[in-house]
Amino acid sequence: MKTKVITISREFGSGGRTIGKLLAKDLNWKFYDKELVNKISEQSNFAKDFIEKRGEYASSKSEFLYSLLENFGTTNGGQSINDKLYITQANIIKELAQEGHCIIVGRCANHILRPRDDVFNIFIHADDEFKSQRIIRLYGETEKTAISRLKDKDRRRAVYYKYYTGEKWGQIDNYDLALNSGKIGIDACVDLIARLIKNI
Amino acid sequence: MKTKVITISREFGSGGRTIGKLLAKDLNWKFYDKELVNKISEQSNFAKDFIEKRGEYASSKSEFLYSLLENFGTTNGGQSINDKLYITQANIIKELAQEGHCIIVGRCANHILRPRDDVFNIFIHADDEFKSQRIIRLYGETEKTAISRLKDKDRRRAVYYKYYTGEKWGQIDNYDLALNSGKIGIDACVDLIARLIKNI
Repeated sequence: MKTKVITISREFGSGGRTIGKLLAKDLNWKFYDKELVNKISEQSNFAKDFIEKRGEYASSKSEFLYSLLENFGTTNGGQSINDKLYITQANIIKELAQEGHCIIVGRCANHILRPRDDVFNIFIHADDEFKSQRIIRLYGETEKTAISRLKDKDRRRAVYYKYYTGEKWGQIDNYDLALNSGKIGIDACVDLIARLIKNI
Repeated sequence: MKTKVITISREFGSGGRTIGKLLAKDLNWKFYDKELVNKISEQSNFAKDFIEKRGEYASSKSEFLYSLLENFGTTNGGQSINDKLYITQANIIKELAQEGHCIIVGRCANHILRPRDDVFNIFIHADDEFKSQRIIRLYGETEKTAISRLKDKDRRRAVYYKYYTGEKWGQIDNYDLALNSGKIGIDACVDLIARLIKNI
């Protein structure tokens, strides 16, 4: 198997996005995270802000009523607006995979690309202490505690993933490699993956 | 963190035991699998055969009645004979970890050694096709299909793990590293782990 696409799923705060970015630089591959949002926005009428909020996360509780109203008013042949976004981004993810030599972060890419045999799926996680310190350093303090911010983001990612794939987010056998970035270190994770991809 | 102990949990047929053995040779560390059974047998009155059958697996359905009768007759201060075996092997695992520079396969070692900060926990899994071919090559054909042999062993490992740790076997964040040996290859798994342990 010659790997042409890497997908990275990650717990919030684990550094999965950073690992993907550094890895793309090391391998000289394309990196799709914000860039994927731009592409989806270009090929659809979704605003970037909406894609970021709804392309990977289930609504927060406070948004629930709004979401119901929104879906009620804007169905499209039975599809909710969220479903339409999912289908649009799934198609773009398939196109990018076809071009190859790219790293795609989140957005159920591991599930969407399952029919391909040239995809390597990675999951990055870490302990709460490591993730909390990291998000405070990167995004600052907020009224909510770091732990509750972590839990809320991951819960919403898991709900989104379950809804669109029917599977449990973070199920160990859905990933070829899972790393504890807190224990191993961000740079060591990048080195390990780069070396592996160059050799298998 | 300087790693002194590696635990390897593995799906049946994934090659986790082989990876541990090769890794121990590479690192020049001690390897405990069958050797652990011998140690438990020396320090207790349990027969090796019993330790192998009950030190990591819940009873199969056909053994259920026997197990009930056995526990009924041989309680020891409220402990069943299976509980006594678990406690004995947990104590031995703790002693071996204290000596350090060793690799321990299965037997809830990742859970038992959680209080230590010098332990690196690995999970090895693979797809059913890879595992089936491997167990037929290693252990031969039987009346049961390879798939049902895999599923039965892993189900009993999961039940045992849940019973004694209260946790789900194969839960991604209980492991510092999880590898798909079918995709990566046994030798590449060994190289990757050895390199990582020497560097972190």
